[in-house]
Parts: sequence; structure tokens; C-alpha cells
Amino acid sequence: MASAEIDQLTQALARLPGLGPRSARRAVLHLLKKREAALTPLLRALGTVADKLATCGICGNVDTTDPCGICTDAKRDTRSLCVVEEVSDLWALDRSRLFPGKFHVLGGRLSALDGVRPEDLGIDTLIARVSGGDIDEVVLAMNATLEGQTTAHYLAERLESHPVRITQLAHGLPVGGELDYLDEGTLAQALRARRPVA
Amino acid sequence: MASAEIDQLTQALARLPGLGPRSARRAVLHLLKKREAALTPLLRALGTVADKLATCGICGNVDTTDPCGICTDAKRDTRSLCVVEEVSDLWALDRSRLFPGKFHVLGGRLSALDGVRPEDLGIDTLIARVSGGDIDEVVLAMNATLEGQTTAHYLAERLESHPVRITQLAHGLPVGGELDYLDEGTLAQALRARRPVA
Repeated sequence: MASAEIDQLTQALARLPGLGPRSARRAVLHLLKKREAALTPLLRALGTVADKLATCGICGNVDTTDPCGICTDAKRDTRSLCVVEEVSDLWALDRSRLFPGKFHVLGGRLSALDGVRPEDLGIDTLIARVSGGDIDEVVLAMNATLEGQTTAHYLAERLESHPVRITQLAHGLPVGGELDYLDEGTLAQALRARRPVA
Repeated sequence: MASAEIDQLTQALARLPGLGPRSARRAVLHLLKKREAALTPLLRALGTVADKLATCGICGNVDTTDPCGICTDAKRDTRSLCVVEEVSDLWALDRSRLFPGKFHVLGGRLSALDGVRPEDLGIDTLIARVSGGDIDEVVLAMNATLEGQTTAHYLAERLESHPVRITQLAHGLPVGGELDYLDEGTLAQALRARRPVA
């Protein structure tokens, strides 16, 4: 019914995470009806990003500049480095504005199942950055999954010989978490890492 | 954190129906990471549609051609015309492939509250199409809302003097509807329009 061009747009949108065929159709209708207010700005923003898109040669972040905005930010503490699996993790941590240092994106996690080996990740560049000195602390901010934790252990071993403090994110109850609804693994972690009441 | 260009893209996506700031961010990350597979096709599809976008001068549909693909489709029955409020309604009905005729989009519904009067809708063009002869049946496919039904009544009156059969969509239980969960209005409609068991 809709022309082939509109169908192609719907399909391109439907492939985005969080959008299915139905919501993509609604989004396309919205774009068609609001040409000036929705279609044109989206087209312009997409075109600009497509033109400038770059992977940061230092940390592996994606941005419209290389080095990225974080690596070039003079206000950030160059002495602490937070290692994450994916760009999405970097964005999530950065949104919280709690970490004042720089980042390093591995581009995945070690996985025997998926055949991801250390040389497939940005580990050599990490070691090089740490070897360059100037870094006091490396925060291993891997996901609390089996593969994430395996990766963290591997990195901790590789970094052992370097004169840096190696830390990792605390595990335990999430904010608002109710004991009754939490899995045993989380409860075990929270109990094991229990702290004296201040 | 993300550059201004990436922020603008996130905001443009977040304004689409069905996407909020969070899912827009995920979609942008996906686009940045899958440049060839996601960003480029979306940009191309969007550009093509933006170039060709047109409102059909006959029926009010939006398409990449004017007249639209439905109006120029020789396989459709020109003797029946289905009147809908919005382009989205046209698309929904057309997806069902149950209506073989042509469509007419009013572009809204009569609303005292929102100040929408008959002259604000595509009613004159509808009357002109019907007056042109060649049409046997006009299906009023308004929404089953107060304003939709007011619009349908108004159209029925306006079309009364024309030699066409005027029908409207049946009201009653939706497929899978359980009496216990349906509102009284629907139950009343379903009971009022009850039919002999075949």
C-alpha cells in the first residue's frame, strides 16, 4: 500500500532496538505528517552524525570527533581510568556524572562460547595506556555477568605488574531492591561484601 | 558527554512516538555502532522519502507520489469509497486488505472542544468526489469515539441527498473480547446490534 520508499524507511526504523514494525510504522506516519517539525530535523541530524562519525583512537568511544569529547576534556582526571565493555556502558556511567576520570572501551567481553579472545578486545591498547604511566587507578567496570567477571579477572591479572591500584564496581543490592525479589546470587554477593554500619 | 551533533540526533529520535529519551539513546548507539548496516540505510531511506513526500490531491493520503499509490491502483474498486479521519486509519484499514475500494482522508474529526469545524476537514473534496458520480457506496469509517461518531453523523447528513449507499463500521465485541472486561458502552452497542444466529 505504502510506496516502496516509505516501506524501506519503515524497515530501516524497525531494525532499531526498541522499535518493532508497528511502532516503526507509527514513527513513519509521524514523520510524514510533521515534515518540517520532525522529518527535516531528523534527516539533518542523521546526516551530520553520519558525516562526522568516528571511533576515538585513544579510548574506543564513538563520537563526532577523534579523539572523542571525553579524551579531550581538560577538566577530567587523567589519573583514573574506567574500563568498560561497550560504548553503551561508557555512556551509562558518564550520564551518572559520578566518575571524573577517563574511559577505555574494550569493545566486548571474553567469551569462550562466542570465540572472543583477548586479542579481539582493546586490551593491548589498555595495557599501553597504563604502561604510559600517569595513571593511578584502573576501575574495572565490567557487567556483573559471568563473562564480564571473567574479563575483569583476566584484566586484573594482566595489570598486576603495573604500579596502579585496580578496583572494581561494588556488587550488592541495587537501590530500591527488595530482598524478597532479588536472586540468590545478588543476595550472596551482598552478604559476602557486608560492611560495618558507620 | 556525547557531542552536540549526537545529542541533536538523540533528541530528534526521542520526539518520535513510541520512543523516549532512553530508547532514543539506545537507537543512536545502535546507529553509531552499525554504521553500514543501520545508519547509512536509514539516512538514505529518510532522504528519499523527504525528497518525494507528497499529499495526494485526490484522497489526502501521504505518499511518495501524487496521486498516491491507492488512487492510481487500477485494481481497486472505484465504486466504493471509505472515509477515514486520519492517514493512520487509512493505513490500518489498508493493512487488513479487507476493503477493495478507494479512500478519503478527512484530516481530523469535528470537535467543538478543539474548534475543528466542517470547513477545516476535507469534506468539500469528499462531497465533490461523491457528486462526480461513479460511486455506489460510502463507508464512514470514523473512530468509535464521541467526536468520530459526531463526524460520521454530520457526513451522513451531508451525503443524504446523493444517490449513494451510506454505511458505517459495525460496533460490538472486539475479537477475543471478554464480556467481563468490556466497558458498558461496548456491551450496549453489541446487545443493541445483536443478530440472529445463522
